[in-house]
Amino acid sequence: MSRQALIGIVMGSDSDWPIMRHCAETLAQFGIPYEAKVLSAHRTPDAALDYAAHAGARGMKVLIGAAGGAAHLAGVLAAKTELPVLAVPMPSKYLQGIDSLLAMVQMPGGIPVATFAVGEAGAVNAALFAVAMLALNDAELAAKLSAFRARQREKVLAKTLSDLP
Amino acid sequence: MSRQALIGIVMGSDSDWPIMRHCAETLAQFGIPYEAKVLSAHRTPDAALDYAAHAGARGMKVLIGAAGGAAHLAGVLAAKTELPVLAVPMPSKYLQGIDSLLAMVQMPGGIPVATFAVGEAGAVNAALFAVAMLALNDAELAAKLSAFRARQREKVLAKTLSDLP
Amino acid sequence: MSRQALIGIVMGSDSDWPIMRHCAETLAQFGIPYEAKVLSAHRTPDAALDYAAHAGARGMKVLIGAAGGAAHLAGVLAAKTELPVLAVPMPSKYLQGIDSLLAMVQMPGGIPVATFAVGEAGAVNAALFAVAMLALNDAELAAKLSAFRARQREKVLAKTLSDLP
Amino acid sequence: MSRQALIGIVMGSDSDWPIMRHCAETLAQFGIPYEAKVLSAHRTPDAALDYAAHAGARGMKVLIGAAGGAAHLAGVLAAKTELPVLAVPMPSKYLQGIDSLLAMVQMPGGIPVATFAVGEAGAVNAALFAVAMLALNDAELAAKLSAFRARQREKVLAKTLSDLP
Amino acid sequence: MSRQALIGIVMGSDSDWPIMRHCAETLAQFGIPYEAKVLSAHRTPDAALDYAAHAGARGMKVLIGAAGGAAHLAGVLAAKTELPVLAVPMPSKYLQGIDSLLAMVQMPGGIPVATFAVGEAGAVNAALFAVAMLALNDAELAAKLSAFRARQREKVLAKTLSDLP
Amino acid sequence: MSRQALIGIVMGSDSDWPIMRHCAETLAQFGIPYEAKVLSAHRTPDAALDYAAHAGARGMKVLIGAAGGAAHLAGVLAAKTELPVLAVPMPSKYLQGIDSLLAMVQMPGGIPVATFAVGEAGAVNAALFAVAMLALNDAELAAKLSAFRARQREKVLAKTLSDLP
Amino acid sequence: MSRQALIGIVMGSDSDWPIMRHCAETLAQFGIPYEAKVLSAHRTPDAALDYAAHAGARGMKVLIGAAGGAAHLAGVLAAKTELPVLAVPMPSKYLQGIDSLLAMVQMPGGIPVATFAVGEAGAVNAALFAVAMLALNDAELAAKLSAFRARQREKVLAKTLSDLP
Amino acid sequence: MSRQALIGIVMGSDSDWPIMRHCAETLAQFGIPYEAKVLSAHRTPDAALDYAAHAGARGMKVLIGAAGGAAHLAGVLAAKTELPVLAVPMPSKYLQGIDSLLAMVQMPGGIPVATFAVGEAGAVNAALFAVAMLALNDAELAAKLSAFRARQREKVLAKTLSDLP
Repeated sequence: MSRQALIGIVMGSDSDWPIMRHCAETLAQFGIPYEAKVLSAHRTPDAALDYAAHAGARGMKVLIGAAGGAAHLAGVLAAKTELPVLAVPMPSKYLQGIDSLLAMVQMPGGIPVATFAVGEAGAVNAALFAVAMLALNDAELAAKLSAFRARQREKVLAKTLSDLP
Repeated sequence: MSRQALIGIVMGSDSDWPIMRHCAETLAQFGIPYEAKVLSAHRTPDAALDYAAHAGARGMKVLIGAAGGAAHLAGVLAAKTELPVLAVPMPSKYLQGIDSLLAMVQMPGGIPVATFAVGEAGAVNAALFAVAMLALNDAELAAKLSAFRARQREKVLAKTLSDLP
Repeated sequence: MSRQALIGIVMGSDSDWPIMRHCAETLAQFGIPYEAKVLSAHRTPDAALDYAAHAGARGMKVLIGAAGGAAHLAGVLAAKTELPVLAVPMPSKYLQGIDSLLAMVQMPGGIPVATFAVGEAGAVNAALFAVAMLALNDAELAAKLSAFRARQREKVLAKTLSDLP
Repeated sequence: MSRQALIGIVMGSDSDWPIMRHCAETLAQFGIPYEAKVLSAHRTPDAALDYAAHAGARGMKVLIGAAGGAAHLAGVLAAKTELPVLAVPMPSKYLQGIDSLLAMVQMPGGIPVATFAVGEAGAVNAALFAVAMLALNDAELAAKLSAFRARQREKVLAKTLSDLP
Repeated sequence: MSRQALIGIVMGSDSDWPIMRHCAETLAQFGIPYEAKVLSAHRTPDAALDYAAHAGARGMKVLIGAAGGAAHLAGVLAAKTELPVLAVPMPSKYLQGIDSLLAMVQMPGGIPVATFAVGEAGAVNAALFAVAMLALNDAELAAKLSAFRARQREKVLAKTLSDLP
Repeated sequence: MSRQALIGIVMGSDSDWPIMRHCAETLAQFGIPYEAKVLSAHRTPDAALDYAAHAGARGMKVLIGAAGGAAHLAGVLAAKTELPVLAVPMPSKYLQGIDSLLAMVQMPGGIPVATFAVGEAGAVNAALFAVAMLALNDAELAAKLSAFRARQREKVLAKTLSDLP
Repeated sequence: MSRQALIGIVMGSDSDWPIMRHCAETLAQFGIPYEAKVLSAHRTPDAALDYAAHAGARGMKVLIGAAGGAAHLAGVLAAKTELPVLAVPMPSKYLQGIDSLLAMVQMPGGIPVATFAVGEAGAVNAALFAVAMLALNDAELAAKLSAFRARQREKVLAKTLSDLP
Repeated sequence: MSRQALIGIVMGSDSDWPIMRHCAETLAQFGIPYEAKVLSAHRTPDAALDYAAHAGARGMKVLIGAAGGAAHLAGVLAAKTELPVLAVPMPSKYLQGIDSLLAMVQMPGGIPVATFAVGEAGAVNAALFAVAMLALNDAELAAKLSAFRARQREKVLAKTLSDLP
């Protein structure tokens, strides 16, 4: 994307992309410029911290961290930026993401991380939440969000009208 | 508070106040006008929905829902507003809040709710996250947040300097 | 079905139908008129609340809510009707429905929701429970329920008679 | 109570009474005649089964089973009656009632048990649910339930009006 | 089997057989006469209770109950017999058997049920445990058990000798 | 106790005694000679293994292992004896015994351990189960067990007769 | 301690000291020089990372991280040092440390963290494990460890000899 | 491998090899001589204990135990050696390894076992942790570890540079 990214989607591994592309596609649907990066809290800590430390000065508004297992990425980003940080727990191979969820949502007081559902639903909702934040100061985006919510409502209502067999 | 509230803290029960006052006090510390309400998703659904539906027009920027057990409050607010909605799971009497947490964080895609830790840590962090959101467009608040983060850092570092016995 | 529906099966998503059709088929087996609707607590809150608010006046006797994850649907219906509301937790993609179950069964005191097992077993049992409720004032239905229970017993006993290899 | 009991509250142990009296008191508040019995699925199976088997003929309408741990009582009652059976999971000493909850709610298809929250909230809600069932065919009781719901709403709204400090 | 069965394997459903046949085959391996029955605590309570009540007089020594979900079968058998009762939790469709396990193992004091692992391992071990019980008073069986244990040991040791690549 | 112990109660720590004395007292109530030992699978493995290896030759019939956390004691005993081994999970300080339970009950196929409930209920039931095993070949003990079961039944029925207030 | 610390005990908060002093005291008992620091992965990330980055050059051999909730401290230290890093999960206020445990032990492949039990047991065992590591190249320490293990064994055996009442 | 093994990988079953070969391959990558054995804590206790008891004298430095379910292997090894013992929880068939994890990590104070993640990640990390331990006194190995960490960092950074689509 050519415009300055407002949102940074940061994944602990590129294996998170099949889930997090739902986040990216939702942002794209609203025309919000974003960048998607692979940066590991554990394997590339300096790069991850550096990214977080300079995100604000680069003009970014929100960081979204996605990781699985002992999912420290969002907390590590939040430690180095004062931007709002969102977290999407990735499903883990055996424990199904309950580990990722607890490792993200249970942040001690002082450094907040806003956590969403495990997997695709969380990926989409983190994007929609970022839209809602930006829409607070962007009337055009607010209108797009209203339209999205209306379309979403209509889609369900269309199913509502026709009784199931 | 006399100024127009920017943040609405909504609790399912006044028994949530001993925990949620940590949220209120954190907002007050940053001089952010807020209001704290008891509104039940289940016992006063119309009032809760009405509150959410008009919050934006009243000039509010963020809603924070706190509830326990089958904690539907934040999701119900989010269904009726396009403002960002934060959720703080209250510890439940027997299951300790794991029920409240899952009932909040596992929102299906389409209507996001940003969830924080169970109890006091989550109450404080929801406030700090709201501050970070508002600071995106308020340089003075951003400076306050930086100062808060610096003080918090100094407090830990003061303990760091003196070895434990 | 042409007769006035006595039971409303309400699903948060049409993806719940493969499970909830077991509920519908069980009701059909007893000749109880029902309707099955897709109505989301989060995406179409007004429609969902409206449905619940008028269900009693339309002559309905029982509502059955089916949802997954942060499953608020049954609680939201119960908030707007005084009819008995049953809940069937849908299995969620990663957490397998333990989230849906807790988000339904742990309702705070004041607004009851009667919860059944996760998935198909719960779908069938919600229907059978609705039958048992209606049978309290419908001798013909009570006879059908007795017959059903007898047949079910016979089916197991038929297997009992023949020792497994 | 002198009138014929319509509801049977059955507990696995008299140690369940401090929680289940909330159920009894709620029924009393609505003037519904009930009886409260200690009957163990395991220690007095014949008495428990006998109670369930004759409850319908004695004019009862609903059975409410309360038990903890491997909580089989409600399922055992349901096996011997065609009346609606409700279940209230008691908190267990070490596992806090998650065992009781799963042992009640996860009934296999064919014999339904309607389950409510662990502890006091579940005790109250089982009573309110029984009221809602009976109110389907009792206009006076339906009016009482409406009045109860209205009073409950007013109590929360009274707290809503006064902002918390 | 023509000889008087000493062990009764009782399953809540014939869908439990693919797991419980491992139990039966282990007993057969030791030449212990058993019978395998489908008897549901909920759908055929009288038959299940009757079976348990007369098992001792028929010359049986041990009952093994296998069930899933709200797995009451072993507890129900134990309520009606003074024979030792073993329990094998069946894996449940969504909650994987953690519900079955808790519903079996957490029996309140007074009526014991000896519980084994979820699934095949539990099925085999319930059989081996029954063998150990019977071997207390059957020297020939004790010798068979010793031989089994020795063979089992040898099988592992054979793998031990050859280093893995 | 002067007579040859038939049952060995083995605890990982003497802090388990306040719970396991319920096991000992139940055995004493039936006049069954037992011994209670502190033997740690981890801190005194040789003594524990030695105890198990010679228990049979010493005339013992059943071993009961009680331990908490990563509770290996019962499995370690079972590895070195062909006697039936029972397991009582001790409540752990923070995880409440769910760890102890899983560490005991989930034994892989081949070496069975019969597991009972966490804490006092499990302690009593392990004793009662041992009684039931021994009663298979001891008519006097069988009569005592019948009497115990009858008294237990009467105690509950006495409470049954008097309606709760 | 005057000698160069070989072990760094790092806590996320000084509220962890009442538990982690058991770790320090165990190290002191073996005469191993250590230092205990409060350093937060989230509130003082630079100091924490800096500490880890220079620990090796300062002559340290092992780092022990203790934290609760979304416990990232040990993982963050491990990201910046090649020294062995141990982790002790602190009990959290509501979820009892299951969150801390999963947030520590479930590290993705590539950056290892060796995890011990929740609370005091883990604190002691992390120290004993550090002793075992250092003893690999320190015969005197190895002798002390042997003596410790022998004393520990004797203490249990002393209890073993005297039968419990 | 011809050189004296420094690391012993011990598995409860050869079915653990597809996961534990990741551990072996990681050690091989660093040129560390190891041996991989199948030894069951339950089916071959003497062999397992014997192996642990003589590992130190044979010149081994670290034992790695891998087991599933009631995973006692690592604890049993640790009871008989003063070498550092690492534990890798194997995923269990139905409970996915949460049982194996708790049965390993929750060791009582006195006998430490260092636990890693469930499955492949834990297998790799146990190897890397063993490398880090040995590298404390082996400059060449320390250099290899640094190089490994650098390569790992570069691999992630290579992905970082190229934005995802």
